Amino acid sequence: MERIKPRTLSGFMELLPAPQTQFERMLEKLRATYSLYGFIPLDTPIIESAEILLAKGGGETEKQIYRFTKGDSDLALRFDLTVPLAKYVALHYADLAFPFRRYQIGKVYRGERAQRGRFREFYQCDIDVIGDGKLDISNEAEIPAIIYQAFTSLGLERFKIRVNNRKILTGFYAMQGLAEQSGEIMRTVDKLDKIGPEKVRALLVEGGVAEAAADEILKFIAITGENEEVLAALEGYRGRDPIFDQGLDELGTVVKYLGSFGVPADHFAVDLTIARGLDYYTGTVYETVMLDHPEIGSICSGGRYDNLAEYYTDKKLPGVGISIGLTRLFYVLGEQGYLNDDLVTAPADALILPMTEDLSAAIAFATQLRQAGVRAQVYGEQKKFKGKMSYADKLKIPYVVFLGEDEIANGVVKIKDMTTGDQQALSPAEAVQTIADAMAQRAAGKPIREKD
Amino acid sequence: MERIKPRTLSGFMELLPAPQTQFERMLEKLRATYSLYGFIPLDTPIIESAEILLAKGGGETEKQIYRFTKGDSDLALRFDLTVPLAKYVALHYADLAFPFRRYQIGKVYRGERAQRGRFREFYQCDIDVIGDGKLDISNEAEIPAIIYQAFTSLGLERFKIRVNNRKILTGFYAMQGLAEQSGEIMRTVDKLDKIGPEKVRALLVEGGVAEAAADEILKFIAITGENEEVLAALEGYRGRDPIFDQGLDELGTVVKYLGSFGVPADHFAVDLTIARGLDYYTGTVYETVMLDHPEIGSICSGGRYDNLAEYYTDKKLPGVGISIGLTRLFYVLGEQGYLNDDLVTAPADALILPMTEDLSAAIAFATQLRQAGVRAQVYGEQKKFKGKMSYADKLKIPYVVFLGEDEIANGVVKIKDMTTGDQQALSPAEAVQTIADAMAQRAAGKPIREKD
Repeated sequence: MERIKPRTLSGFMELLPAPQTQFERMLEKLRATYSLYGFIPLDTPIIESAEILLAKGGGETEKQIYRFTKGDSDLALRFDLTVPLAKYVALHYADLAFPFRRYQIGKVYRGERAQRGRFREFYQCDIDVIGDGKLDISNEAEIPAIIYQAFTSLGLERFKIRVNNRKILTGFYAMQGLAEQSGEIMRTVDKLDKIGPEKVRALLVEGGVAEAAADEILKFIAITGENEEVLAALEGYRGRDPIFDQGLDELGTVVKYLGSFGVPADHFAVDLTIARGLDYYTGTVYETVMLDHPEIGSICSGGRYDNLAEYYTDKKLPGVGISIGLTRLFYVLGEQGYLNDDLVTAPADALILPMTEDLSAAIAFATQLRQAGVRAQVYGEQKKFKGKMSYADKLKIPYVVFLGEDEIANGVVKIKDMTTGDQQALSPAEAVQTIADAMAQRAAGKPIREKD
Repeated sequence: MERIKPRTLSGFMELLPAPQTQFERMLEKLRATYSLYGFIPLDTPIIESAEILLAKGGGETEKQIYRFTKGDSDLALRFDLTVPLAKYVALHYADLAFPFRRYQIGKVYRGERAQRGRFREFYQCDIDVIGDGKLDISNEAEIPAIIYQAFTSLGLERFKIRVNNRKILTGFYAMQGLAEQSGEIMRTVDKLDKIGPEKVRALLVEGGVAEAAADEILKFIAITGENEEVLAALEGYRGRDPIFDQGLDELGTVVKYLGSFGVPADHFAVDLTIARGLDYYTGTVYETVMLDHPEIGSICSGGRYDNLAEYYTDKKLPGVGISIGLTRLFYVLGEQGYLNDDLVTAPADALILPMTEDLSAAIAFATQLRQAGVRAQVYGEQKKFKGKMSYADKLKIPYVVFLGEDEIANGVVKIKDMTTGDQQALSPAEAVQTIADAMAQRAAGKPIREKD
């Protein structure tokens, strides 16, 4: 038979079993966190009508889309989870209760140029709260708490959530008489980290901003410090533009509730340089950075928008949402050696090695283990003892259970802790308890462990 | 703005939040069950090179495949999880330990003619055990235990796992001198349930089978009864064909271990009419039927095969696996009214209604609930009391928590059980405990509840 060389497409992450287990554990933690905050899981098709997905049209995204026909249908693969959400809410509007809070964790597709660390198929892990006509600012205040809890549950410690409010920016530029140019200015200001304030100022003046206004802009974006200090500095601008004042009130509310939401002050910063998705976000915007790896960019971003589904319905549906690009984050964590290898990545907690031809006793003990929630596998292959043990070693199975004629006759099982090498003969019930306790302890670890 | 009418493609299941929650719960149960038996989760790309997916080529499937080009690449969406598994094992052979036990739960794509209850995008929930060169019969014996545990964990009670062994069929037809025609004969025999034995006999004879052989075939497939009775009857054929004898030994082993695996005898039957995937399966084959709904067909099928990845590698990789088509099963369960509506389908266990302008106390209490694992939502919208309560009603949220100035002053929260209507004022800690206990009790229910 002629054989085809097996391969996986480039830009598609396909993990070996051990890292896949680590990835799954991260998915579980995110599902659990999102659920705790009252978000319901949603699942939408990966294929949609191209007309629906491209309703907004144009832009860089369109070129990257996987689009094809099947029969008479013009189809495409979803490239994010926001457009399908917009369609979903517009389509099922009458059946939903608002605010509608959903999370969705799923794969999306972008045919980008393949390069290291960039993926064409990747998981997005999104939450959104959608209002019907209006949506209270308290929803925007809650988002940093969810971001904080999500990353903390994963084990990440050294990160910071940066927050801004688009109304403050819009209002500030209006004060300067620069409302028209504000988009361009924000794109220039966004380069601050890379090129420094001097060059930003030069670019602004080059772009037609008056010297005095450029100085005002640099003074404004230089406002930093503790949250209360930033808010106090911003108060100095109050009363000159109603949009600015509204944004400042909103930012004050977001900062005010942080403590009640359990977000430590050092994990949060107001940052006036953040703008994000200029034509989409209208209120609070969020970015999250790893303190030791700013080069990675934001690992969780989002914001408040005014009109989720304007391409599908005349209903006004404001919302606020965030997204974690888990595939890329997982890749980076792996590269940095941040994945916690103490967590069990074996398919089973206990491997039972029957030493008799009749497997009944081994199977019965495996059944007993499973009833206690212990993941158990009976090794039934005809192999030498050494081969069986090397199977357990290769998979890093935490416990091996020996069941020979002696053990069966004495009503015991012999268990070996593969980490310590300790062996003990115990009654089946004791053995189950010992393994279950050890596994519960190990399961308390978190997927991410930053380096010391 | 010109609007596009929102729609979801036909043949694609898109659930409302409450049924989606029920579906997710089923996914969780299957993940948990598969894990308990020592299977590791796997995730492979939804898009593969068409050359890889179609290596086997031809057949009905090819017409249904979503195939398209992107740049120079000839791509296709996976139509099952078996072909990607074959590719995976061939590609990563050197990094895997055998037997390799994986589960995969994911969407697959088949562009079938859309009709009620048929889906173009659907979940398959698969397990497979892959051996390197050989694989012990005990793996085949374990499969019915996993099927039993999977459906039991979902709450299904009235089902039966039917098992046969392809070697018994092959051997039997060889005894009759009908080895060549056995494929065609089995397809005719498969119609037994629909057309009855008389017509099957007529068709066999019409197809060239001698009258005497046709009688032998009908006598053979009429062997039914308790497992021990069927095995005893099959013993009558022993010694006439080595393949038959081997199959009978294997079937005996599968039946023997059922008890140790915890499978009740009444959920299992040897059924000599089952053949399945004629050119693929070589040993034990499985089907699972709902006793009250035989018209649905098998809800979990699979079997033993000898060569998983022959299109990609010259390594011999025998295996055994099963698949549950969860999307269709879920659809059928919903149609039959079998989904357990007692389980919570709300996005939150507790909805907190703040009665003060400052939300700090409400947010702090929500944080306390979440720390105890209770899914909590603060309702921050500016609405009348009636509107807030109707939100809780519409979403079927189990508990509503009232927090007004009086409660805050007295250090209590008022909780309302939305099922009974009972209200009580409790300390925050008592309230958290009350809600957590009630939710734990309700979570013990299973997703499926058959009708009385």
